[in-house]
Amino acid sequence: MCHISGVVIAAGQPVLEEEYMSDRIANAQLRSKVMTADEAAQFVNHGDKVGISGFTGAGYPKVLPTAIAERAKEAHAKGDEFMIDLFTGASTAPDCDGVLAEADAVRFRTPYQSDPIMRNKINDGTSFYADYHLSESGMYVQQGFFGRMNVAIVEAVRITEEGHLIPSSSIGNNVEYLDAAEKIIIEVNSWQSEELEGMADIWRNNPLPNRVAIPITEPGQRVGTPYIDIDVNKVVAVVETDLQDRNAPFKPLDEQSKQIAGHFLDFLEGEVAAGRLTYDGYRMQSGVGNVPNAVMSGLLDSKFENIQAYTEVIQDGMVDLIDAGKMTVASATAFSLSPEYAERMNNEASKYRESIILRPQQISNHPEVIRRLGLICTNGLIEADIYGNVNSTNVIGSRMMNGVGGSADFTRNGYISSFITPSDAKGGAISAIVPFVSHVDHTEQDVKVIITEYGYADLRGLAPRQRVEKIIALAHPDYRPLLEEYYDRALKAATERKTLQTPHDLATAFSFHQRFQETGTMKLS
Amino acid sequence: MCHISGVVIAAGQPVLEEEYMSDRIANAQLRSKVMTADEAAQFVNHGDKVGISGFTGAGYPKVLPTAIAERAKEAHAKGDEFMIDLFTGASTAPDCDGVLAEADAVRFRTPYQSDPIMRNKINDGTSFYADYHLSESGMYVQQGFFGRMNVAIVEAVRITEEGHLIPSSSIGNNVEYLDAAEKIIIEVNSWQSEELEGMADIWRNNPLPNRVAIPITEPGQRVGTPYIDIDVNKVVAVVETDLQDRNAPFKPLDEQSKQIAGHFLDFLEGEVAAGRLTYDGYRMQSGVGNVPNAVMSGLLDSKFENIQAYTEVIQDGMVDLIDAGKMTVASATAFSLSPEYAERMNNEASKYRESIILRPQQISNHPEVIRRLGLICTNGLIEADIYGNVNSTNVIGSRMMNGVGGSADFTRNGYISSFITPSDAKGGAISAIVPFVSHVDHTEQDVKVIITEYGYADLRGLAPRQRVEKIIALAHPDYRPLLEEYYDRALKAATERKTLQTPHDLATAFSFHQRFQETGTMKLS
Repeated sequence: MCHISGVVIAAGQPVLEEEYMSDRIANAQLRSKVMTADEAAQFVNHGDKVGISGFTGAGYPKVLPTAIAERAKEAHAKGDEFMIDLFTGASTAPDCDGVLAEADAVRFRTPYQSDPIMRNKINDGTSFYADYHLSESGMYVQQGFFGRMNVAIVEAVRITEEGHLIPSSSIGNNVEYLDAAEKIIIEVNSWQSEELEGMADIWRNNPLPNRVAIPITEPGQRVGTPYIDIDVNKVVAVVETDLQDRNAPFKPLDEQSKQIAGHFLDFLEGEVAAGRLTYDGYRMQSGVGNVPNAVMSGLLDSKFENIQAYTEVIQDGMVDLIDAGKMTVASATAFSLSPEYAERMNNEASKYRESIILRPQQISNHPEVIRRLGLICTNGLIEADIYGNVNSTNVIGSRMMNGVGGSADFTRNGYISSFITPSDAKGGAISAIVPFVSHVDHTEQDVKVIITEYGYADLRGLAPRQRVEKIIALAHPDYRPLLEEYYDRALKAATERKTLQTPHDLATAFSFHQRFQETGTMKLS
Repeated sequence: MCHISGVVIAAGQPVLEEEYMSDRIANAQLRSKVMTADEAAQFVNHGDKVGISGFTGAGYPKVLPTAIAERAKEAHAKGDEFMIDLFTGASTAPDCDGVLAEADAVRFRTPYQSDPIMRNKINDGTSFYADYHLSESGMYVQQGFFGRMNVAIVEAVRITEEGHLIPSSSIGNNVEYLDAAEKIIIEVNSWQSEELEGMADIWRNNPLPNRVAIPITEPGQRVGTPYIDIDVNKVVAVVETDLQDRNAPFKPLDEQSKQIAGHFLDFLEGEVAAGRLTYDGYRMQSGVGNVPNAVMSGLLDSKFENIQAYTEVIQDGMVDLIDAGKMTVASATAFSLSPEYAERMNNEASKYRESIILRPQQISNHPEVIRRLGLICTNGLIEADIYGNVNSTNVIGSRMMNGVGGSADFTRNGYISSFITPSDAKGGAISAIVPFVSHVDHTEQDVKVIITEYGYADLRGLAPRQRVEKIIALAHPDYRPLLEEYYDRALKAATERKTLQTPHDLATAFSFHQRFQETGTMKLS
């Protein structure tokens, strides 16, 4: 059945492929803009600032990036320049970030990325990358901090008769880019279920100085419209696609992930025992990955009921919690599902939209709402130091991994902010606990709980020196003596200097990292 | 004239000193609790968690700290333990933090302090100090993160017939401590003008999970009551005082401060030219100090009108702007005035309360309101690195200065977040620009503008490598070659390793700090 008002195609009636596709473009003016991706890519020029849809591999444009990459390659073959500034929601996919990076077509990239080729181009100096909090990147566009946005390229499930966009599997910064851009290109993707309609909740604040309170006081509240209203006169092209999102499978739960999840649940039980949490109405945020999915798997068998997520992305584990009746609502800005779960979501979107809400990332990650709701937040990390500072972005101080994402939006403003991580990486060559983190994304003031397979450290109310023992106990046993040795040395120097707030020996603060650079492992050889 | 309802003392009528004092205690039950400071101090025991009023030397208890310090000294003389955990709004004074620290009576201190003796006791290891954002410290007490609060000691201008407290020259965390503590001690200070009544705006959110939006959409909005309602049955003592706040004079404007202020105003003019700011209704936050006061002095002669402050403390410069009709409203949580201005405030409180509002620090510094209002924020720093990370707290990585205060509340959430600082300190021995900051309080994602006497660096929209040249240009010329040399070395290593996002040479990242430790200056000898 089709959604175009005034047109009814009886179920089972054969339709031509082309007619079926254009069912999804109900606005006459925009139907006239349908063209191929190659034709649409002509609207994107060298030097343009291009804001696209896409968040954790969901809802990104599927064909324009390749077409733009082809333009860049052709220009480069002729010796001409062709690079764009690429703004997204967050990470996209090989057929988006990947193809553009591979064509050396990205001069500047913000805010979050995880594509291997894009990452390499950032680290080899081809592309500039500016890391911003996901709640702020769209706001900066609204505030004019990047200058004029030339083109917005946004995937939609369908276009209504009025010319409104029904968002697909992510909202991200779509609203900000569509509002700000001079030209709009829409990809209408028929792979995305039309029944996603009703899942989105689009709400814009007034421009400064007239911003009002965001009217969300519960994770499940809907405050806006299920569509994005756009200026149809800015639309220069509509392209039809039927390609699926990048949906990466999660690894099966391993023993270590289960241990970490177990410690996290122990921590929650302790909060219940202390009267700071109840089994009913636990409000959560969770980063993406295998360990967070293990936590959600643990919640399935826990005493917690009426769990509510106000988070960034919907993961497999949340779908399981919803199916089990343990989670009553999940608010996010995007899906990040395995292929199996993505198919289920597409088939049963009309069921899931009862309990899932997708919001603009400025709202899903907004400090105002996060602090108001009282979320228990859980994110991953690259490394933490013995005083509780956390590095989420730069490997060995210099190499960008993915970016800070929304982790700081949630960590700074959450009711309790925790980090979960295996104690080591790269087969033991890298310790997650180091003397001094080589980049800081979460300051000691913000980090409340750290959890590894060896337990949890509750840092609340502790001065730096009081945290050290608890944090070293989380390290892999191979690294504990090295960390203790560092702390002893730092303590001795600081006692002499009377600088005992945060004892450090700056000469050896980065000794773990330097050893890794020199020998390939942070361990003593 | 006196404010007690039902009691009128004609102007000029002679009253006994004692009667005059008790004018300010209109509640009969609390009048019966009047006693000396030494008597009241008996309610404070070893191991107690004590939450007191006081913020930037304003509105702190004037006599209880000394009486508690005496108890501690007596106990120590007998070989007994006596230490308390001390919670404040922010910094207090020698007769508060100072006397308690001097008596070794403070086991744990949070959140912000600046008393020289307190600071020394933290750094020599006598006292533990936990640094928290000023918007969060009171919230953590509400959330039970520190355990049970035993005693609240709060200064008031007067106690109403109903037993409400009229706050004095700071609000700080008074509400949170009074709500949470088992016992309350009130200091009624007759030095504080009774006409401060009406300046405070006390608003509490609901406890979780029922928090609502904070109903402030303009800096000047009043949303609460001019008094703090307390549980009078928890009051164990009322002590009368007449001692003045610690009000430190500002230094006269020097040439360097004027230069920094000039660059800040140039930056503002550039924002107006770019259409991101208007001359009417500029909304500001400002840290405390001589350079911020120079900025306000610069605003006096600027084209900006209808300036509105939503900030942490009211400083001399704001009073001047109000007097000149340039500033229409100033919202804060405390005064931080020179003695001359404090006297003026006390004499003319009824005039100034038309345009000055004092709020709980959880509200004055709340991310929700800060982000909503669109503030241009200006704070100081200890050091910034070549990529824009900022250290506000730990000198040479280890020694606590004062704490992060509210700087991160405003920096993370401001419309534009700037840092202003002289390019060097200690007669040139310390550079404000270093290769790698020795502690991070403000991450590179949050720092948008840095200003020294050599100009301003607008970092918005720039990747780390794009920031370096701009930031090095802010350094003192003596340090620029050393910084360039570091960057060249880091760039070379990162080019080889393909880790060009944030090039660092970890072996020499702290070379400036190590040189200072070894030779007393960051300069090459």
